[in-house]
Amino acid sequence: MQQARDHGGGVDAALARWGGARSDWIDLSTGINPVPYPVGRVSDMAWTALPDAGAEARLIAAARTFWRVPEGVEIVAAPGASAIIAALPGLWRLGRVDVPGPTYNEHEAAFRAGGWEIGPGGEARVIVHPNNPDGRLWSADALTAPRMVIDESFCDVAPGHSLVGAAGPGRIVLKSFGKFWGLAGLRLGFAIGAPEEMARLRARLGPWAVSGLALEIGARALEDRAWAEATRQRLAADAARLDGLMAAHGVLVGGTDLFRLYEVVDAAAFQDRLGRAHVLSRIFPYSDHWLRLGLPGPEGWARLEAVL
Amino acid sequence: MQQARDHGGGVDAALARWGGARSDWIDLSTGINPVPYPVGRVSDMAWTALPDAGAEARLIAAARTFWRVPEGVEIVAAPGASAIIAALPGLWRLGRVDVPGPTYNEHEAAFRAGGWEIGPGGEARVIVHPNNPDGRLWSADALTAPRMVIDESFCDVAPGHSLVGAAGPGRIVLKSFGKFWGLAGLRLGFAIGAPEEMARLRARLGPWAVSGLALEIGARALEDRAWAEATRQRLAADAARLDGLMAAHGVLVGGTDLFRLYEVVDAAAFQDRLGRAHVLSRIFPYSDHWLRLGLPGPEGWARLEAVL
Repeated sequence: MQQARDHGGGVDAALARWGGARSDWIDLSTGINPVPYPVGRVSDMAWTALPDAGAEARLIAAARTFWRVPEGVEIVAAPGASAIIAALPGLWRLGRVDVPGPTYNEHEAAFRAGGWEIGPGGEARVIVHPNNPDGRLWSADALTAPRMVIDESFCDVAPGHSLVGAAGPGRIVLKSFGKFWGLAGLRLGFAIGAPEEMARLRARLGPWAVSGLALEIGARALEDRAWAEATRQRLAADAARLDGLMAAHGVLVGGTDLFRLYEVVDAAAFQDRLGRAHVLSRIFPYSDHWLRLGLPGPEGWARLEAVL
Repeated sequence: MQQARDHGGGVDAALARWGGARSDWIDLSTGINPVPYPVGRVSDMAWTALPDAGAEARLIAAARTFWRVPEGVEIVAAPGASAIIAALPGLWRLGRVDVPGPTYNEHEAAFRAGGWEIGPGGEARVIVHPNNPDGRLWSADALTAPRMVIDESFCDVAPGHSLVGAAGPGRIVLKSFGKFWGLAGLRLGFAIGAPEEMARLRARLGPWAVSGLALEIGARALEDRAWAEATRQRLAADAARLDGLMAAHGVLVGGTDLFRLYEVVDAAAFQDRLGRAHVLSRIFPYSDHWLRLGLPGPEGWARLEAVL
């Protein structure tokens, strides 16, 4: 918030540029699942009380099972993966960090703000796995630096590729709740790593970092394997459907089942055309041709088909 | 969470020691208003979308008006005052910090974890205003260090005493949403200070630090002056009522209208007696005689009267 860096999700800015009411817009500028995990009933205590250790323990246990976190490795819950990304550069002694790009720009920004040099061959390396925006998958061969950040924010659509088994001293894996479970407003993310590094991360976040709502809903969602499996199947089908719609307009560069990256003739013109129809897409300051689209919800397909 | 430091709010631990079901317990171990601001209807977007700049701007504007924040001073919203307390020591060059006590223990812990020396006469000073647990009020005379943290987490019951007018370079005022508005599970707090220091704090918290729920509910609550005024009156009456009940058992040391500190003959024995009746109170590792009680909700008074 109040950041100058380029991100998706700026519906307010889109309203200012292309008009319309907020409820008219279909926001395809992020990689957030448009069919969220059903929030259901939340206890009064989740709203009113300081988040309790028992609720956190249930969430962490659910996360450990869901992501098959290895023994001896700890999990820290945070108010969004962004809070962890902002804190990571302070966990390690200053050095040089390699952030192979193009990728999600908060990693480099956070290390730079923390006084790190940016470039290959240094003490630390960040890989976004699968990568945003092109969906590139990495293997364990990419874990070349003594300090590794493996950002698996979009890996829950492809859990077989997870590198969580590599988490340990100097290797921190990040997980995001908001994207796959479609509750980005709730703010919940996780770091998985060695106990000593996780203790320092916890100290940087302070006590009661995660809301009682996120503890309760997050635990319920991570325990719900059937929802996750059905969601993976739906997202895969919807990604294929979007590729079908876009086939006439561009070439698929890559992506995940939460967002697709296409090469089009003129990305800015394409974004403008969609924007005038109140469909928000994502383009990138470093490319004239890349257009990224998230998936519409069930009620959005007809509009999108009419526009494309 | 997962902190070893002594805090209120540990209902899980109380269950383990004194038994009972969670819903049986009256938690008087914190200073959280037991009659929360009514959450009402929350937009779907607050749950699902990345928190938007427009929602944050509305919250910040409401905070500026509610606390009469001076021109030229900025406000940063965070997921709880605790997140700010954890980040503050990293904003300034290492030195020595004075934290006059006894007081809320997270301040000293955060500065210590950040590598600061603790003691008077240094570069920084933290005052909790009014102080927790004794309710001591400070004046502008206490702003003696070049870097001041003024923690006004409990000042909304006594807004006439606020030192927010002193916020500026090297003087950061903290506000808590969870306590006065009774929504501690939501996680919302504010720092008020000079633009340059607030920019560094924002960088440490990362983007989208505050949930969409907290942005929306927080804005609505801070705009609701009538609720705040009625709540102040109710809390003042309830604090007097609690003092009346406790008059036979101890001497009032101080407090605020959100918690009361009493001197009793044997604080541990008193806590145990309340605990066996499933009323959770707060005692302090540094005192054999201090007992702190928050206020019960409307349905809790009869039980408390029967116990006392």
